[in-house]
Amino acid sequence: MTETEICSALAQAVDAVHKKNPLAPSITNTVTQDFVANAQLAVGGSAAMLYLADECIQMAKVAPAFYINMGTAMPFYAETLPKTAQVLHENKTPWALDPVGIGLSNLRTDILKQFKNFAPTIIRGNASEIIALAKLWGLIEDVGGQVRGVDATEKVSSAKNAAIALAKFTGGAVAVSGEEDFVTDGNDKILCAGGSELSTKITGSGCALGGIMAIYLTVATPFIAALTATTMFNLAGTKAAAEFSAPASFKVNFLDNLYELTAQEVAENFRVPGSFEKMFNF
Amino acid sequence: MTETEICSALAQAVDAVHKKNPLAPSITNTVTQDFVANAQLAVGGSAAMLYLADECIQMAKVAPAFYINMGTAMPFYAETLPKTAQVLHENKTPWALDPVGIGLSNLRTDILKQFKNFAPTIIRGNASEIIALAKLWGLIEDVGGQVRGVDATEKVSSAKNAAIALAKFTGGAVAVSGEEDFVTDGNDKILCAGGSELSTKITGSGCALGGIMAIYLTVATPFIAALTATTMFNLAGTKAAAEFSAPASFKVNFLDNLYELTAQEVAENFRVPGSFEKMFNF
Amino acid sequence: MTETEICSALAQAVDAVHKKNPLAPSITNTVTQDFVANAQLAVGGSAAMLYLADECIQMAKVAPAFYINMGTAMPFYAETLPKTAQVLHENKTPWALDPVGIGLSNLRTDILKQFKNFAPTIIRGNASEIIALAKLWGLIEDVGGQVRGVDATEKVSSAKNAAIALAKFTGGAVAVSGEEDFVTDGNDKILCAGGSELSTKITGSGCALGGIMAIYLTVATPFIAALTATTMFNLAGTKAAAEFSAPASFKVNFLDNLYELTAQEVAENFRVPGSFEKMFNF
Repeated sequence: MTETEICSALAQAVDAVHKKNPLAPSITNTVTQDFVANAQLAVGGSAAMLYLADECIQMAKVAPAFYINMGTAMPFYAETLPKTAQVLHENKTPWALDPVGIGLSNLRTDILKQFKNFAPTIIRGNASEIIALAKLWGLIEDVGGQVRGVDATEKVSSAKNAAIALAKFTGGAVAVSGEEDFVTDGNDKILCAGGSELSTKITGSGCALGGIMAIYLTVATPFIAALTATTMFNLAGTKAAAEFSAPASFKVNFLDNLYELTAQEVAENFRVPGSFEKMFNF
Repeated sequence: MTETEICSALAQAVDAVHKKNPLAPSITNTVTQDFVANAQLAVGGSAAMLYLADECIQMAKVAPAFYINMGTAMPFYAETLPKTAQVLHENKTPWALDPVGIGLSNLRTDILKQFKNFAPTIIRGNASEIIALAKLWGLIEDVGGQVRGVDATEKVSSAKNAAIALAKFTGGAVAVSGEEDFVTDGNDKILCAGGSELSTKITGSGCALGGIMAIYLTVATPFIAALTATTMFNLAGTKAAAEFSAPASFKVNFLDNLYELTAQEVAENFRVPGSFEKMFNF
Repeated sequence: MTETEICSALAQAVDAVHKKNPLAPSITNTVTQDFVANAQLAVGGSAAMLYLADECIQMAKVAPAFYINMGTAMPFYAETLPKTAQVLHENKTPWALDPVGIGLSNLRTDILKQFKNFAPTIIRGNASEIIALAKLWGLIEDVGGQVRGVDATEKVSSAKNAAIALAKFTGGAVAVSGEEDFVTDGNDKILCAGGSELSTKITGSGCALGGIMAIYLTVATPFIAALTATTMFNLAGTKAAAEFSAPASFKVNFLDNLYELTAQEVAENFRVPGSFEKMFNF
């Protein structure tokens, strides 16, 4: 896509969500549900969190998009997650996956292996998680390396090949979050800047980002959905950090900014101004 | 009740909670527990969230009121919820029900059908949920219509008959939340105004409203408890929206306002000033 | 320890966490996870919440410290909690326990009895909980008294002997939270002042305090870890209450203050200035 095409698509996505108030139900961790839901509402979407297999399946059949975040896995996830993903896949319903906690347990590994058959439309994670998932699915060579808890131990750039491999495999988009954010559909590759170090001092930024990607999946392609959400997060974070220097007041202002961002602002800021080439050819 | 009687009862309820710091334990969804608990604390109450059947039963035997919100149902709800409601009913302990998610699954339908025998003292929901519950219990004719996720698709006025039917059946009160709020015990019928559209942009407003209704059930009749909580929410929302125009700062200020509201303010504002007749004869 | 030694140890603990960003995984209640995690991040630590037995066991084997808060017990806690505590004990990994809800159910009683064999490194609770645990473990005489829900019904001073008995038994530290906070390792006994009544109007202050004690366990002795966390909480609360008089804005500012506190401030304020003797000889 050209820069002009991207700008136009981002603006359309922001406006469409503002207009339609689309619902993207979630199976997501108990720690950050409040933040995920409030972020989804702030951008103009609607939220509903669920756990039971039959409820998730029913919602997966009717919702325009879905979000699965593997955070605080509970015993019933073994049934709920694969069944939901299967229904989403069969119904060609777009869904965003956050494979947080990959490698922590056999249950997670088993679920994530099954997801390979159900093609998550967007995969969002930090560099460590994206690399680990590409390895688990046999898309890149496994040469060791580890995930520590829920935090990244790798740089975004180190996950470039893993992200591209995952995107080519799923036919969707992959977003690697970090100091800069890499978004790709396997062909287009964009490195986004902005945001704030303070977002690492509040819990759930990544979860919330995945949640609004799911909202944008209701109105845009996977690549544009991932890029719209990433750009909004970076913009809202940059603005909040200009006003506040501590994490809790930063978070309040960050959510307020998400609510107030316009289509035009998002379209104009999906990359660092003046560094288009670098960003585009990452 | 006359307007004067209502004003007096509201003021007494607000003061009594400030004085007694009453506990109303909850079984409530994982998304908005923080908001529910903080709202309960803000008005002067005390909060405790529980999941296990035997703990809920034990608390149901000793607590002065209870709150059940069906939000993020988990597998063990099949046992916990009906058993708790039964004990509440047997002990004549007042309890507030939020039937959020009604219709999402057989488990919810089954639990809600059982609740018909256990007479929730207050039922709070949006118009869609109140209509759905009245249909499920066979109190009004089922002529179709649907609930979408956790959001209302019906106007408050459309749920008037359903609310009255439910209140007459339970002998308690019903509150229908929306742009305006309808509170009834089957005889008295009040339409409350105020609040802010911004409360639809933060997750859990309805859950928190139900939670503080349970707090007021410890000191007031079901009708007055529902009306006190509704009035406080509308007042706190109106004030917050006058100060803040984005959702996260609105929420912080909203909770601060709940904490600061006085008995006199609540008593004087349970309806729109100057529109008493309309509000009272809705 | 002398006052000088304590001041020095507190400053070192604050700095070490700022430098190392240590992870202390948690099994903690669903109500206040967001607050716990954000408090842990604010002081410079890292957070990960878990539920599944095998994940908790795996993390217990590699994490430098752990936090178990019994809040909203779920059915699978029967397996997860004792197994995790056993692994922590076998690996000599320090861990902080918040026995909130003690006495609510047989499951809790059973789990807490098992914990007697696994020596929690720090036990933090309100006076009622500390007394109840010391009784449950047979360390003090059981002469009746009760815990109401999750709130304290006893004064901090009444739990002095129970706290000392628990600390001597575990060889770790015990912190009794209340209007003032008592921290002891069985030998040293410090009564800390500061904080704000407003912290009782927000849910999860105690949970968050336990969570950051676990963070400091990665860099300090149990006594110093408990004292560092307590001092930071009191300082952050005192400062927030000087700026804000309502609970939600207080909470935002409280977290901001946690983030901004320096080692020097903490070292200089672990007790009430001028009342050293009283505080030290409590």
